[in-house]
Amino acid sequence: MGRWQPDSRGRLQEAALALYSERGFDQTTAAQIADRAGLTERTFFRHFADKREVLFGGSAPLKERIVTGVADAPATDGPLDAVSRGLDAAAAAMLGEARRDLSRQRQAVIAANPELSERELAKLADYAAEIAATLRKRGVSEPQASLAAESGMTVLRVAVQRWASGDDGRDLSVTMRDSVAELRAVAARG
Amino acid sequence: MGRWQPDSRGRLQEAALALYSERGFDQTTAAQIADRAGLTERTFFRHFADKREVLFGGSAPLKERIVTGVADAPATDGPLDAVSRGLDAAAAAMLGEARRDLSRQRQAVIAANPELSERELAKLADYAAEIAATLRKRGVSEPQASLAAESGMTVLRVAVQRWASGDDGRDLSVTMRDSVAELRAVAARG
Repeated sequence: MGRWQPDSRGRLQEAALALYSERGFDQTTAAQIADRAGLTERTFFRHFADKREVLFGGSAPLKERIVTGVADAPATDGPLDAVSRGLDAAAAAMLGEARRDLSRQRQAVIAANPELSERELAKLADYAAEIAATLRKRGVSEPQASLAAESGMTVLRVAVQRWASGDDGRDLSVTMRDSVAELRAVAARG
Repeated sequence: MGRWQPDSRGRLQEAALALYSERGFDQTTAAQIADRAGLTERTFFRHFADKREVLFGGSAPLKERIVTGVADAPATDGPLDAVSRGLDAAAAAMLGEARRDLSRQRQAVIAANPELSERELAKLADYAAEIAATLRKRGVSEPQASLAAESGMTVLRVAVQRWASGDDGRDLSVTMRDSVAELRAVAARG
């Protein structure tokens, strides 16, 4: 762990991701996670409802950040501009907590497990639905609202993956903005 | 059924969608579907491996059409242009079979059942992965390949929903192309 000394929650997350990576998600128990973290099982369940929540516990606050970012965007913003502000807010929020190595482990664990992959997709679909609703409240009509919201989730997924798998030292905010620009370039007629 | 007289497979699909709509997917059995279609349960299982395949059976050939359409696009096409050709091919393929009323029923059944919704998302993610691989073979690099492929799936989902819920008589190809144009407009800076 070196210079970085995480709190109980952080230690449990690190231990869980290490075990999920080593033996697989289904083969890991809460007791083993607690043991690896040098904590009790009771402490585990004070922080997480179950094993899955270690992977998805940050989801609700992240959605909240994105949606607030979209809602608070200047009225002159186009739909994708507004979504991009939401993504900026998300990147800023994740920066404090997310470490590249843990994010990479998390993605590998999810990719290796079909049930977790489906859960991850459902999470992003849920974000998209709420973002589209927020855009409609801003006066954006359909299908533009859904297209912009879902495009935002495409950018989020691609950017987090690029960021986690890279080692170029660029922070997530930069990769997120760059990915929005790439999407715009892809969508522009050649 | 009126003037349209479907074959056994078509009758089973119609019966299944009607029952899934009326009583819910989980509450419907293969025997009930066969009975409603005036056929035997054995005939049902000659056409479908299980109840879910009635909803997802067309998935593999559809993916094949899209991927072939992308692979065969002119070399001068940009990534989203190529994906758009794949979507054209999909719309042409679906036109022969897909009826607006059945497509609408299918969507409602899937939306009402979280497990089926996750399966539908996983299906589109699988399409996107294969389309991105096809684009990379055409020389498109990352992240453009993934962004274009996933944007195509956004268009597919939004377009099929618009088409199925509308009653404007426009065919799916038109709605698909229009949705690509809408995505381009959304992505263009305001």
